[in-house]
Amino acid sequence: MKRIVVLGSTGSIGLNTLNVVREHPEEFQVVGLSAWDNAERLCEQVREFKPRAAAIGREGSSLKLKGLLDGSPTRLLAGEEGVVELASMDGVDQVIVAITGAAALKPALGAIREGRIVGLANKETLVMAGELMMEEARKHQAKILPIDSEHSAIFQCLEGNSGQGIRRILLTTSGGPLKDIPAERFGSLSKTQIMDHPRWKMGPKITVDSATMMNKALEIIEARSLFGVPSEKIEVVVHPEAVVHSMVEFVDGSVMAQLGITDMRLPIQYAMSYPRRLSSSLPALDLVAFGRLTFEPPNPAKFPCLTFGVEAARAGGTLPAVLNAANEAAVAAFLKDSLPFTQIPSLIERVLGAHRNTAHPTLAQILEADAWAHEQVTELRHGKEVAG
Amino acid sequence: MKRIVVLGSTGSIGLNTLNVVREHPEEFQVVGLSAWDNAERLCEQVREFKPRAAAIGREGSSLKLKGLLDGSPTRLLAGEEGVVELASMDGVDQVIVAITGAAALKPALGAIREGRIVGLANKETLVMAGELMMEEARKHQAKILPIDSEHSAIFQCLEGNSGQGIRRILLTTSGGPLKDIPAERFGSLSKTQIMDHPRWKMGPKITVDSATMMNKALEIIEARSLFGVPSEKIEVVVHPEAVVHSMVEFVDGSVMAQLGITDMRLPIQYAMSYPRRLSSSLPALDLVAFGRLTFEPPNPAKFPCLTFGVEAARAGGTLPAVLNAANEAAVAAFLKDSLPFTQIPSLIERVLGAHRNTAHPTLAQILEADAWAHEQVTELRHGKEVAG
Repeated sequence: MKRIVVLGSTGSIGLNTLNVVREHPEEFQVVGLSAWDNAERLCEQVREFKPRAAAIGREGSSLKLKGLLDGSPTRLLAGEEGVVELASMDGVDQVIVAITGAAALKPALGAIREGRIVGLANKETLVMAGELMMEEARKHQAKILPIDSEHSAIFQCLEGNSGQGIRRILLTTSGGPLKDIPAERFGSLSKTQIMDHPRWKMGPKITVDSATMMNKALEIIEARSLFGVPSEKIEVVVHPEAVVHSMVEFVDGSVMAQLGITDMRLPIQYAMSYPRRLSSSLPALDLVAFGRLTFEPPNPAKFPCLTFGVEAARAGGTLPAVLNAANEAAVAAFLKDSLPFTQIPSLIERVLGAHRNTAHPTLAQILEADAWAHEQVTELRHGKEVAG
Repeated sequence: MKRIVVLGSTGSIGLNTLNVVREHPEEFQVVGLSAWDNAERLCEQVREFKPRAAAIGREGSSLKLKGLLDGSPTRLLAGEEGVVELASMDGVDQVIVAITGAAALKPALGAIREGRIVGLANKETLVMAGELMMEEARKHQAKILPIDSEHSAIFQCLEGNSGQGIRRILLTTSGGPLKDIPAERFGSLSKTQIMDHPRWKMGPKITVDSATMMNKALEIIEARSLFGVPSEKIEVVVHPEAVVHSMVEFVDGSVMAQLGITDMRLPIQYAMSYPRRLSSSLPALDLVAFGRLTFEPPNPAKFPCLTFGVEAARAGGTLPAVLNAANEAAVAAFLKDSLPFTQIPSLIERVLGAHRNTAHPTLAQILEADAWAHEQVTELRHGKEVAG
């Protein structure tokens, strides 16, 4: 029985993680749950799974959760510290990090420093602090298992090859909801059109990242950290059917690919059951029904965020954290209808251009760069000039 | 430095094996070579690779080889016994079995009984005597590494999964040269048209087997033995581009696939370098240039040999050996222009129907069944009735 903590249990990945637990009650025991501020949902989950502890990230929702769970034996924690405490708790085998954005960084590091198996669904942490996280994982003998479908695919392709002899990583992308829409029309699209992803049902932030292809840019940086492969060896391939989740080409010319239906329960369960595979009630992939799989080159002229990703991956230092933060701020503004979609890339580009990069940054320097980039986006949006 | 023996060094797989050795002279040393009767080519290879021993299978070509290699320090062997002796020689790490047909059986068993790593390009041996060979391999701790591109692909997909949790093996086939030609037209095709394989350049026998799809039938039986998977779990998928060499679907719904260009040097080199991967000068697979990969269901009504394969795999015993022998005899007759292409399946079907199956056969019983099926084909071709 694997004792697991699910951080971000009320989000899309968190809910699916709990679905896997429900399907395999003999394999997993939930010992900890955390949410940002959805106290009602977290309360239901605590009642169902009876974890030892639960944490709510937003301090202001703490009293509400306490009221809802009055009399429950589950220990209740609150705030960033509470979430980090939950992630670092004793008597835990695996921590699933399903918190979105930079907020996952400290809890993820907490779990890594306890030497846990960390199922990492959050890509921003590796983008911001990949070098640091991998270094800490080595030091504390923690194992980071990717949950992002592409990185899970790459991880599976590398199994049995001891990470040796990689010629290229072929990172696939469906191309996102705007693949077939000319860039000239981006300005006239509604939010609904922009967020209508053809293959994956995901949270709002990652859906916007798919539309700008920033999602793939972040994944290049993520892959570089996870697999220790330089960015020149990571290629993006557009594959609209999203059946091949990614591929690895080895030095002998052999290409291993992982395929599956587009359901996050697949990579989540793999990270949870690794190195075993457990049965799944999901429908099987039917390649004959698909009939054909297509592959196209990416179009960085149309999606400049792709180029930002390659550049930030090559530069390293604090630049990936700045890219991530500028994007986070820009997307948040777009989701609040206070920034047009077409201005997301140009805003990010200006912040990147103004940044003075710091090589091999500490966590403090990374967080500082993150805060700086957020500020810059606010200032730029209010028409001020960027200070480097 | 791996010391290797190449059995069948003058055939298509043998020549490519030696190409791999030429590309990696620091990795491999050829210590033994054998050919059926191409004394000139074998002589050239002996001069180049200076093996400890060389064998010519056809007794009648022995004097010729001795003449050509007069004064060479390489020990010369002849006949079936000579080839078996070469395969069982001391001081050998790996034996590549690239002999076509049933003639490979005794040498392959010789190498297995010495506990060698056996790179097996020959599928007939596993079809005829799969159960026996795998049992001997376990007993003598020999490792059988498949060289057939499909089985190499399956083997690679299973690496890192310890053979656990297989839901289905998806055996791909290009569909062969007759995929898009209606069965009614088979009777009017020339030998050149029948043997014009769209993807793979191979020897004549296997090219005819591609046209009848008997090749895939034999591969079902081969996969069943190699991977210990029942025939119900082996599905054939038509994939005309022949880029995906085969796939494995696991119980969690994840599908691993191995892709590559259609060049036998890839699976040959993998079997030779396993568990490592060596670099290769072959062109890389360019999926974007392909643009699309297609998948179709097979058509057993048009290619009845497929059904024979499924039935023989299910029945086991001596039936697979009879299927193989009847096919070998029928294809030989076709290649000598003494049997029309369209009569290959019906002839095989009649021999299968007349066979009295023996479960868990000994080698003697297998060879007896093989000889019986050859005789039956001869008799049927001369209009006699089949005796069971």
